[in-house]
Amino acid sequence: MLFEQITIVGVGLIGGSVGLAAKARGAAGRVVGVDRDPNSIAKAQSVGAIDSGTTDLAAGVAGSQLVVVCTPVDRVAEVILAAARHVRPGTYFTDGGSTKGNIVAAVQGKLPPGVEYVAAHPLAGSEKAGAEHGRADLFAGRVTALIVGKLGSDWGRTVTVGRFWEALGSRVVLMNADEHDRTVAFTSHLPHAVAGAVAGITPKEWLHLSAGGFRDVTRVAAGDPDLWAAIFTANRDATLTALTAFNSRMNEFRKLLEAGDRDGLKRWLNEGKQVRDALGT
Amino acid sequence: MLFEQITIVGVGLIGGSVGLAAKARGAAGRVVGVDRDPNSIAKAQSVGAIDSGTTDLAAGVAGSQLVVVCTPVDRVAEVILAAARHVRPGTYFTDGGSTKGNIVAAVQGKLPPGVEYVAAHPLAGSEKAGAEHGRADLFAGRVTALIVGKLGSDWGRTVTVGRFWEALGSRVVLMNADEHDRTVAFTSHLPHAVAGAVAGITPKEWLHLSAGGFRDVTRVAAGDPDLWAAIFTANRDATLTALTAFNSRMNEFRKLLEAGDRDGLKRWLNEGKQVRDALGT
Repeated sequence: MLFEQITIVGVGLIGGSVGLAAKARGAAGRVVGVDRDPNSIAKAQSVGAIDSGTTDLAAGVAGSQLVVVCTPVDRVAEVILAAARHVRPGTYFTDGGSTKGNIVAAVQGKLPPGVEYVAAHPLAGSEKAGAEHGRADLFAGRVTALIVGKLGSDWGRTVTVGRFWEALGSRVVLMNADEHDRTVAFTSHLPHAVAGAVAGITPKEWLHLSAGGFRDVTRVAAGDPDLWAAIFTANRDATLTALTAFNSRMNEFRKLLEAGDRDGLKRWLNEGKQVRDALGT
Repeated sequence: MLFEQITIVGVGLIGGSVGLAAKARGAAGRVVGVDRDPNSIAKAQSVGAIDSGTTDLAAGVAGSQLVVVCTPVDRVAEVILAAARHVRPGTYFTDGGSTKGNIVAAVQGKLPPGVEYVAAHPLAGSEKAGAEHGRADLFAGRVTALIVGKLGSDWGRTVTVGRFWEALGSRVVLMNADEHDRTVAFTSHLPHAVAGAVAGITPKEWLHLSAGGFRDVTRVAAGDPDLWAAIFTANRDATLTALTAFNSRMNEFRKLLEAGDRDGLKRWLNEGKQVRDALGT
């Protein structure tokens, strides 16, 4: 067992899955859940994701050695700073947020002595929300990005928190916050916007003429608009960069199509295929 | 049994699945396969999609009551016109192409007396190619769009060919070619281009930081570039219209993001979610 007791703040899909995985894999002896919404606590408890729950952040984090913050990305930093006043020295914080630069910058230099934060992003999720859709194997085989700062400055806390995400079944990859945010803008945030746009322009009465392609391309558009508005806002600059790259790629496609350049279209399609084939099914 | 013998021209994924389904569901007593590539014929025969095969179009279609053309969309019309000279009066043609206007226009008025063509598009497929990936249930529960011309002009042939696509397990929906092409530009062709663009701008070394979202959005980008270049070219105008709608939707997103308008982003995302939720999982 890595920790006698951990606290999860925000017991939705990700937080609930952290609890289920931590208990199933013996990463924590006891799991306390904290949420603003008593219904979320009740649901997390009923599926066995947490042992006990409270809406009181101070009480919920008091006896834990690790606090995992799984709130929407715009609330992670404030939760860490508020909770840090109620934990013992030696307590670790980590989080499950999809953006990292904004959180790291807001927390940096503001923690009490002996309290450590290691930012994390488990690359796992679902378009579904709520602990009732949580899964003990949500992180199994997935990558967790663990954020490191200056070289050599954070070995101890990185290993301690990294072992926790490893214990949940994920593979830990180290990177800095900028690198993370720039990359996920392409691999996660832009694809989400694109899925939303494809769905958004399609009249519902045309859906009967759709097949697996439309279904796959638009799947993530069913995700929680509130969570995603927060993610886009938090990773604004990197997402705008990805949008620009995407836009010029689509313009190439339009020009080839307008010109009826079938060989050019084939080449353009093949370049995307090479990338997708590298990913596997 | 609907037909004693049918011929499938082009025994790839769709053609092979037509053969498997026709045999499994008793829609045809005997299935003949025609393909330019002897390897494709051998594969289709080895999986049981066809009873016999030939590279000779004239010989392959001679004794059949129904010819199902499953070549790439840019070859459907020429295959129908070439084969029509070798069939008996009373023979029906249909096809499985993803575009309809170009094919209907090229065939219209050019068939010998007593030979009938009913254009079809089964909304089913895969990013995989070849009869070895064919499935007897590929069309089960899917929609097949059946193209009708002027009202009242084609009842008999529509029913005969429609019953065949129904016998393969699909649900037949009647529409005209323009309506079909305009709709699938949004529900199939644009999503394919978008998937290709997302994949095309993503460096392979970033793929380890991708999760289910990227995987789903880009899945169809693994499809055959040659087939899809033909589809885009055949449905050029409708695809350009869909591209314009998509582009202005993405511009709305960019403006909301640049302005940091989180409520606006939420609204924008929610509009897409409404459409995707209407589709189901």
